[in-house]
Amino acid sequence: MVTEIAEIEVKAGMEEKFIAGVESSKPVFLRAPGCHGVELHRSIEHPRQFLLLVQWESVAHHLEQFRNAPDFALWREAVGECFAGSPKVQHTRKVVS
Amino acid sequence: MVTEIAEIEVKAGMEEKFIAGVESSKPVFLRAPGCHGVELHRSIEHPRQFLLLVQWESVAHHLEQFRNAPDFALWREAVGECFAGSPKVQHTRKVVS
Repeated sequence: MVTEIAEIEVKAGMEEKFIAGVESSKPVFLRAPGCHGVELHRSIEHPRQFLLLVQWESVAHHLEQFRNAPDFALWREAVGECFAGSPKVQHTRKVVS
Repeated sequence: MVTEIAEIEVKAGMEEKFIAGVESSKPVFLRAPGCHGVELHRSIEHPRQFLLLVQWESVAHHLEQFRNAPDFALWREAVGECFAGSPKVQHTRKVVS
């Protein structure tokens, strides 16, 4: 299992709309092949900064399958206008738990 | 509950020593007042980059209590020499789960 960690900065004043957009997009992630969960964290020090954490079976499930699926457009439609810039995306593997 | 997210870059060749140091330091975190868990993630794209995720009851449990406790020195002793630079630390609150 890998974790997608996307750092997303949101335009001022659009924070609540963004959170609602992620909340309403949960089914889009949860029905994606290889997706095992999604959560959104908000920075306490920089409240326009968010971290989207998505559990995937593999990097390919995210970058090859999800990003090329029609649902990816739905996701971006729900939240894309809130982005202040391009999300910074990485993938991690848990090495200590 | 808040999550401390520390981005840590590790010196080349010290990755395994760092992982072992975090593993052996788990008790230091788990006995800290207000700490509810620790895990370490390793970036797939940049394998010298790690994310330490620590669950705290509050930011103060981390920054005021833990950082001023003798155990903080133990933690830094276990892993500090592996750091390629100062960790970049932030705290988040889960807003969608």
